Amino acid sequence: MPLLTRITGPRDLDRLSLEQLDQLAGEIRTFLVDAVSKTGGHLGPNLGVVELTIALHRVFESPKDKVLWDTGHQSYVHKLLTGRQDFSKLKMKGGLSGYPAQAESEHDLIENSHASTVLGWADGLAKANELRRSDDHVVAVIGDGALTGGMAWEALNNIAAAKDRPLVIVVNDNERSYAPTIGGLANHLATLRTTNGYERFLARGKDILERTPVVGRPLYETLHGAKKGLKDFISPQGMFEDLGLKYVGPIDGHDVEALESALTRAKRFGGPVIVHCLTEKGRGYRPAVEDEADRFHGIGPIHPDTGLPVKASGADWTSVFGDEMVRLGREREDIVAITAAMLQPVGLKKFAEEFPERVYDVGIAEQHAATSAAGLAAGGLHPVFAVYATFLNRAFDQLLMDVALHKCGVTFVLDRAGITGTDGASHNGMWDMSILQVVPGIRIAAPRDADQVRAQLREAVQVEDAPTVVRYSKGAVGPAVEGVGKAGGMDVLREPGSDRPDVLLVSVGALAPMCLEIADLLDKQGITTTVVDPRWVKPVDEALAPLAERHRVVVTVEDNSRVGGVGSAIAQALRDAGVDVPLRDFGIPPRFLDHASRKEIMAEIGLTAPDIARQVTGLVAKLDGRYERETAAAVEPARD
Amino acid sequence: MPLLTRITGPRDLDRLSLEQLDQLAGEIRTFLVDAVSKTGGHLGPNLGVVELTIALHRVFESPKDKVLWDTGHQSYVHKLLTGRQDFSKLKMKGGLSGYPAQAESEHDLIENSHASTVLGWADGLAKANELRRSDDHVVAVIGDGALTGGMAWEALNNIAAAKDRPLVIVVNDNERSYAPTIGGLANHLATLRTTNGYERFLARGKDILERTPVVGRPLYETLHGAKKGLKDFISPQGMFEDLGLKYVGPIDGHDVEALESALTRAKRFGGPVIVHCLTEKGRGYRPAVEDEADRFHGIGPIHPDTGLPVKASGADWTSVFGDEMVRLGREREDIVAITAAMLQPVGLKKFAEEFPERVYDVGIAEQHAATSAAGLAAGGLHPVFAVYATFLNRAFDQLLMDVALHKCGVTFVLDRAGITGTDGASHNGMWDMSILQVVPGIRIAAPRDADQVRAQLREAVQVEDAPTVVRYSKGAVGPAVEGVGKAGGMDVLREPGSDRPDVLLVSVGALAPMCLEIADLLDKQGITTTVVDPRWVKPVDEALAPLAERHRVVVTVEDNSRVGGVGSAIAQALRDAGVDVPLRDFGIPPRFLDHASRKEIMAEIGLTAPDIARQVTGLVAKLDGRYERETAAAVEPARD
Repeated sequence: MPLLTRITGPRDLDRLSLEQLDQLAGEIRTFLVDAVSKTGGHLGPNLGVVELTIALHRVFESPKDKVLWDTGHQSYVHKLLTGRQDFSKLKMKGGLSGYPAQAESEHDLIENSHASTVLGWADGLAKANELRRSDDHVVAVIGDGALTGGMAWEALNNIAAAKDRPLVIVVNDNERSYAPTIGGLANHLATLRTTNGYERFLARGKDILERTPVVGRPLYETLHGAKKGLKDFISPQGMFEDLGLKYVGPIDGHDVEALESALTRAKRFGGPVIVHCLTEKGRGYRPAVEDEADRFHGIGPIHPDTGLPVKASGADWTSVFGDEMVRLGREREDIVAITAAMLQPVGLKKFAEEFPERVYDVGIAEQHAATSAAGLAAGGLHPVFAVYATFLNRAFDQLLMDVALHKCGVTFVLDRAGITGTDGASHNGMWDMSILQVVPGIRIAAPRDADQVRAQLREAVQVEDAPTVVRYSKGAVGPAVEGVGKAGGMDVLREPGSDRPDVLLVSVGALAPMCLEIADLLDKQGITTTVVDPRWVKPVDEALAPLAERHRVVVTVEDNSRVGGVGSAIAQALRDAGVDVPLRDFGIPPRFLDHASRKEIMAEIGLTAPDIARQVTGLVAKLDGRYERETAAAVEPARD
Repeated sequence: MPLLTRITGPRDLDRLSLEQLDQLAGEIRTFLVDAVSKTGGHLGPNLGVVELTIALHRVFESPKDKVLWDTGHQSYVHKLLTGRQDFSKLKMKGGLSGYPAQAESEHDLIENSHASTVLGWADGLAKANELRRSDDHVVAVIGDGALTGGMAWEALNNIAAAKDRPLVIVVNDNERSYAPTIGGLANHLATLRTTNGYERFLARGKDILERTPVVGRPLYETLHGAKKGLKDFISPQGMFEDLGLKYVGPIDGHDVEALESALTRAKRFGGPVIVHCLTEKGRGYRPAVEDEADRFHGIGPIHPDTGLPVKASGADWTSVFGDEMVRLGREREDIVAITAAMLQPVGLKKFAEEFPERVYDVGIAEQHAATSAAGLAAGGLHPVFAVYATFLNRAFDQLLMDVALHKCGVTFVLDRAGITGTDGASHNGMWDMSILQVVPGIRIAAPRDADQVRAQLREAVQVEDAPTVVRYSKGAVGPAVEGVGKAGGMDVLREPGSDRPDVLLVSVGALAPMCLEIADLLDKQGITTTVVDPRWVKPVDEALAPLAERHRVVVTVEDNSRVGGVGSAIAQALRDAGVDVPLRDFGIPPRFLDHASRKEIMAEIGLTAPDIARQVTGLVAKLDGRYERETAAAVEPARD
């Protein structure tokens, strides 16, 4: 008889036997492969944490105790155990989020999909518990990859300082986050895994655990004693203990009984504890376990038996960039590439295969990516740091202070810029063209098609005294959009067919086809429209102000927050030039966007050709009316 | 005969005997106390690194080898030894920068005063050396406090991963950065200092070092052997070695001979090495050594004998905030305070004295400050994170994704906002009101005087579902500026004295007196002006657009980058309301500002009442002309 469907909340786990828990784990894996192969989603990470999630919910009392997931894409099992078993619309509009979501459940707190945050949250919650004299528990699950992020270190340093403030940190160590975890920490974790032997632990661990009674002894001595006893046999001294954190492990992350025992001790300890769990990403699903490229970290719909994609993906922005990087690498020895633990997703795999000594995977460490890039540039190289647009926020200070202030030639390639949709609020790359505006000397390219990605990347790596940015969308790249002329450095995509046109439409990046559609719609209203693509949206092209002056209204359309974005920059440039032509800027409204498809979101926020054409039509009509009023008023004295 | 004046570059150190080096160190300390007591500057940190700097420049060949300073305020000795001995205008316009500066010397590279960056730079430079097959050396000096910053961890993790890439890290451990360093790392460093004994090392170290011959043996074996030999006697196993970094130390940071010996070994090792040096901040200057509050970290002019300030400082923005925090703390138990290693400079000392259990010093860890604040808020408290405005850039992603996305009530108090001047480009707080504009739900207050700081702080901590920001200037707070009326939530500071006024002048924060002066100047030109202070600059007050519509031009004045700042936000709000009144926005131009006094910089960039009044006058005259032209043109048909 199936067990999973009878689990309506964590406490339903309490009455299950160990055998039943094993059965439940199997059911959950079957469910996940079946459900996620239909919808797409994060498969590998969730298959790896089935037993860990079960154990966490048996030992801790969520939601009174806070069970926190770093990054959050491994929370599917957590969802299944907390009353959410309809995965049919996972990551789709109206369906379950791909991450924890406060709106879905009282068992969820952190919605953020940016890595390495959970220890900061946990430290804050633990401090609040202490001040409010609550004995609720806080348990934070973090991957070994996320520990390479600087803010995890900052948190560990603080957590370790408070010896009596309870907090359980579960390190979910699968030796890879998106890809094999790199760096000194990874080596150290490997040492912890192998010194005195994970195998020996597996063989002897249970015996030792069973010989150490827990209940009825003072908590501290119990754990401390057990720990000391354990350590001599199993657990190597390590950096966590150097920092002052108690260390328990390594634990077999697929053995519910061992996990529960370790978590129970950690829970009772009364101070900060690290529980080091070893898990296998993709556990129980052969295509995922055997895939070294880690393609099952996040997937689209697949055939569940083979793990192959349901539909072959076409050319996408990422691969256009990746292929051009290889060509550039062959032409220029000084070009090096940097990734923050996402070699494959950002398209640098081919470059790495051809130039292994010229690519640096720095871990989930965007700050270091940017500052070490400054160092590389100071050393005479030209680094290209490819990163998801939303994750660049982590490196803003470093881009500003290390790269720009020092006039370093570093190229930032922002993938997944604009509305990405299904991964929810924190994955949309809607901030970059706003916050980067303040960076002195920076140049920002928003290529509209594959040709422009190649051309602008080449232009970017020519700049040796300032940061350059090339930003493009997620997914399939659209058809080529040819220019019909030039205005300064800008491409004219459409001439107005009138000597005194109404609208200057400034199209940013991938929205060029939409802008041409807007122009066609306006044309039907008798509104003549010029469409230009600035290509480089910062600095604003000097030809823009005189061009704008020859139009009655300027309209900007961008796939970025409309606050402080390209539209605002152009508006300011026009003001500075004394050109007071009315301007309307279209973009993403200043709010967080719920998960849905890119198309659904754009419809919802009115970033569609018909919506924009309608608004521009209304504006032109209003201007016509005002102009008539002003003409009528002109018979009155000019001033009081 | 004095030695210092005969040192024109690092190589002049080579010919000095140990006794002469001691004499030189003494001369340098005398020089520093004498010079810095006159100009102000960072005294304590530089007194602590006299011998270390001498040793570095004897062992390494700058500028061929790169000697890098984290944060940079401890580079005075470095300047003295690299041909810069005129400290008479230190940090003043045209004088030496308070930090390394590429424009001053080929011996300087990192100009950035934000902490924890040096290891990233060093990693990049070391990678460049490796790729370009250069045998130049890279040596990075970082304080124990700066190691608490996340990006230092990210760098360490990467540096440790490359066993054969030479890089020397000098940890300058004075047990305090601005204040005693906190956290697990600090405890670990203390362990390294005391386990097996610093005292024992001091007594025996030289003997051991002398007994281990260096020259003539293969480099790796030499250091490795020496290291192994040393370790048994002196050096404890520690987390650095867990990560895979060779560790040498602890070394007496005031013993040039010991320093040179350790640095020479490190230089020859052929891989990444940490040299752990113990120094005393303020060494040799009694007022600094004996001052527990670390007032001599950075000082204004002082009496050199007593260390007392030359002039008593008046009420400043910081203390107004600090005093109000104490009152708020008494009224509300849920208010807690956070600082990133700057308890005293941000004004939280009194709060900490009265509520020691409700203040958290997280180290130089702005990311953690923000995310742990989110956790504290989720736990039912209201955190107030007080930080220099420029350092908030480090926590942008966390403010956006952890605080704002999760609707946490966290108040960010930004001290030293706007132009700060003498500390140079990286200390100006000119970015916050631009980049924070994109954060959904955020509310930003720019109080104009002490009363408003108190009032707006109180309003800020009332907001429980969004981040709030209170930002104010550096230094003495100006006189109270009373409102003469209200427009929505805005304070009207001056009525125009006309029913159809010309100019709506929007004054931001501390610039209120200047804006009133501008209005007076305009008045003399017959231009009638309303002056309003929005108080909360974000969101834009709904009363602003209708008010603007009753004027002929809107002028905004802010102490922030004019790119994407308050002026841009107001311009957009007016566009969105369909109010196309011409607007001109005054603020800081989008470039990095050289060090000078605040007043000098404002004059240089035209942020003065006469400059702005002149430009506004010109604009109004132009509008008059245009209006007349349009009136004349109105006899023509409205459209072609």
